[in-house]
Amino acid sequence: MTETERRSAAVPRPGTAAKRCGSTGNSTSGAHEAHEATVLLERTRALVDPELRAAVDSLPGSMRRIALYHFGWQHADGTPAADNAGKAIRPALVLAAASALGGPPARSAAVRAAAAVELVHNFTLLHDDVMDRDTSRRHRPTAWTVFGDADAILAGDALQALALRLLAEDPHPSSVPAAARLADCVVELCAGQHIDTGMECRAPEEITLDEVLAMAEAKTGALLGCACALGGLYAGAQEQDVAALDGFGRQAGLAFQLIDDVIGIWGDPRRTGKPVGADLAARKKSLPVVAALASDTPAAAELTELYGQPHVSGDAEDIARTALAVERAGGRDWAQTEAADRMARAMQELSRAVPDPEAAGGLLALAEFVTRRTS
Amino acid sequence: MTETERRSAAVPRPGTAAKRCGSTGNSTSGAHEAHEATVLLERTRALVDPELRAAVDSLPGSMRRIALYHFGWQHADGTPAADNAGKAIRPALVLAAASALGGPPARSAAVRAAAAVELVHNFTLLHDDVMDRDTSRRHRPTAWTVFGDADAILAGDALQALALRLLAEDPHPSSVPAAARLADCVVELCAGQHIDTGMECRAPEEITLDEVLAMAEAKTGALLGCACALGGLYAGAQEQDVAALDGFGRQAGLAFQLIDDVIGIWGDPRRTGKPVGADLAARKKSLPVVAALASDTPAAAELTELYGQPHVSGDAEDIARTALAVERAGGRDWAQTEAADRMARAMQELSRAVPDPEAAGGLLALAEFVTRRTS
Repeated sequence: MTETERRSAAVPRPGTAAKRCGSTGNSTSGAHEAHEATVLLERTRALVDPELRAAVDSLPGSMRRIALYHFGWQHADGTPAADNAGKAIRPALVLAAASALGGPPARSAAVRAAAAVELVHNFTLLHDDVMDRDTSRRHRPTAWTVFGDADAILAGDALQALALRLLAEDPHPSSVPAAARLADCVVELCAGQHIDTGMECRAPEEITLDEVLAMAEAKTGALLGCACALGGLYAGAQEQDVAALDGFGRQAGLAFQLIDDVIGIWGDPRRTGKPVGADLAARKKSLPVVAALASDTPAAAELTELYGQPHVSGDAEDIARTALAVERAGGRDWAQTEAADRMARAMQELSRAVPDPEAAGGLLALAEFVTRRTS
Repeated sequence: MTETERRSAAVPRPGTAAKRCGSTGNSTSGAHEAHEATVLLERTRALVDPELRAAVDSLPGSMRRIALYHFGWQHADGTPAADNAGKAIRPALVLAAASALGGPPARSAAVRAAAAVELVHNFTLLHDDVMDRDTSRRHRPTAWTVFGDADAILAGDALQALALRLLAEDPHPSSVPAAARLADCVVELCAGQHIDTGMECRAPEEITLDEVLAMAEAKTGALLGCACALGGLYAGAQEQDVAALDGFGRQAGLAFQLIDDVIGIWGDPRRTGKPVGADLAARKKSLPVVAALASDTPAAAELTELYGQPHVSGDAEDIARTALAVERAGGRDWAQTEAADRMARAMQELSRAVPDPEAAGGLLALAEFVTRRTS
C-alpha cells in the first residue's frame, strides 16, 4: 500500500453489503461512520504512539534519527517536528478487531500488537521507497533521499526486528501465534512487492488481471488482514473467526487499492497532492489500466499504443487521451464494480466473525473510512 | 562479518588463554581442534540444512529462487548447484553451546534456533552486499548483481521474517526469549553496518579506534555472541551463564575480525581469493589501519597522506608502501596483540559459563577454527 498515505481515498459505497452485515442499523449515515472512524484513529494514536515511540527510542542513536524522521516526529536535522506519522489505520484495525470480539480488556491487551503491525508497515514503506525510487511520502522527502539508501534499508531492517521483539516480549498468551502470523505476513508483503517490481520490466499487455489482483492482495490486503487477525487472536477468538477477520481486512484492502488506483487516474490533484494523471504519466500498470488492456476493445488497442510510448512531461493531451482510453475500455467501471464487490465480500467475512452489528461497528467504520468517496 | 565467508582466517594462537580455560587437557594440538571443528561443522550442516531448506522452500516461488541462489543451492537459472552455503559457524555455535550446557538433548532441541541464526546471518549478507556494492560472495556473483537490488533487499527481508517465524513456531519454552534476543541482535547488526557505511564518507584520521572496535563488535561479535547465548537458553542455562556465553562469542568474533583485517592486508591471495592488499587498495578503514593512523608516528603521517589519494589500479608499489606504513606505525602488531587479548577474554567467559573443560571443547574448537592461523 505504497500509495496509501499520500492520497485520500474514494468509494463506491457498498450499501447493500453494509445492510447484509446488518451494521447500518446503528449507523445511519456515512458522516456518522466517518466520525466514528476519526475517533477510533485518534484513540488508537493515543494508545499506540507511546509504544511506538518507546520502540523507536530504543534504537541506537543514529538509526533512531532516521526512524524519528520517517515517522514524522523529527525533521532531518533532529529538531522536533509536528506529528505526521500517518493515519494509524492498521493499528486501529488491530484494536477494533480485539474490541469487537473481546471488548475493552482485549483492546487494551492488544496495544503492543497494534504497535508491531505499524512498525512492520513502516519497515515496508522505508524499503519500498528505496526500491521504487519514490521521493515523497506524507508530504515530505522520503528517508532515502535524505539519509541515503543504506540508512533507509538499515532503518527498515531494524523496524522489522523491533516489531517482532515487541511481540516476543509481550507476555500475552496470543503474542507467539501473533508473531508467527505477522512474520508470515511480512513474507507475503515481500512477495507482493516482488511481483510489483518485476512488472515494471514487462510490457503492460503481458500482465494479466489475476496477476495484478494477486499483487494488490499481497501488497495491500495482507497487512490489513493480518492486523484484523491479530486483534482477533488477542481477543482469544476461534481460528475460523480469526480467518474471517483476516478475510475482512484483505477484501477491504483490495477495495481500497482499487479505489486508490481510480483516484490515481481521475482524482482531484488538490486532494491527491499529485499532478493530474500521475499514474498514467508514469505508465503505471494499475488495476484499471490492466483491466482496460485486457478488454479486447478498440480503446484497449489505443491504450496499448499510448503505453508503448513514454509520456512527455507536461503533455496534458497525452494524459487526457490515456485516461479516456482506460475509461472507454471499461477500466474505470470495472474497478468501481470490483471495489464494491470486494467491500461486499469484506462485509460477509465481518458478519461471519462478528455477528453482532454493534460490536462490528468499529471495523465497519474503518473499512468505510479507507474506501470513502472523496473525488 | 561481511568478509568472513570469503577468506580463511589466521590466528595468534592464545595458548595461555586456552590453558586458563583448561580445555587443552583433552585437546593437545591445534590439528586436533581443527578436526573437531570440522566434524562439528559437518554435523551442524546435516542437522540444520533440512530446517533451512524447509524455511526457504516455504517462500513464494520467485523469492525462493533468489534465496536458493544466495545459499548456493541453485544456479541463477534455477538448476541445482553444488552445495556452497557457507561454513555454518553460527549454527554450529548454537548447537555447541546447547550441547555444552545441556548435552545431546539440548543440542537436538536447538536445531530450529540454529537455523534461525543462520537465516539472520544470510539476511544481513544479502543487504550488506547491496549497500557495500560487493560483487562477489562465496566465489559467486552476489545476489543483487544477478537479480537486482530490489530482489536482493526483498529476499533479505523475507529471510529475517523466516528466522523469527521459525522461533515463533518452535514449541520449546526458550523460543520466546530466544526470539527477543535474536531481534535485539538484528538491531545491533544494523547499527554496526550503519557505523560502517557512515565511516565511508569520513576522512580516515577522523575515525577513532573505539569507534571501529564498536563497529566490529556490533557487526561481527554480536551475532556470534547471540548464537552462543541462544544455545545456552535452549539448554535452560541461568541468565549469567547465557551472558557469559554471549561474551565468549562476542570476544571470539572480535578476535576473528582483527585477524581477518590482518589477512586483508598481508594475507596470501591464493588463500584469500582476493588480490594482494585489496583492503588497502579500497582505502578500507580496517582495524589495523585505524590503529596505525592513531599511533602518532611518522609512519602514521605517511599513511594519512597515502589514504588521502585514491589507489590507482595495479599500482603494486602503492600497496607495498601503504602496507609498510601500517606495519611501521604498529597497526599489525596492535591487531595481533589485540586479537590474542580478545581470545583470552573469550576463554575467560567460556570458563565462567562452562567450567567443565570437556564440555567446553566444542565451543573452544569452533573459536580456534574461526581465528586459526592460515597466512
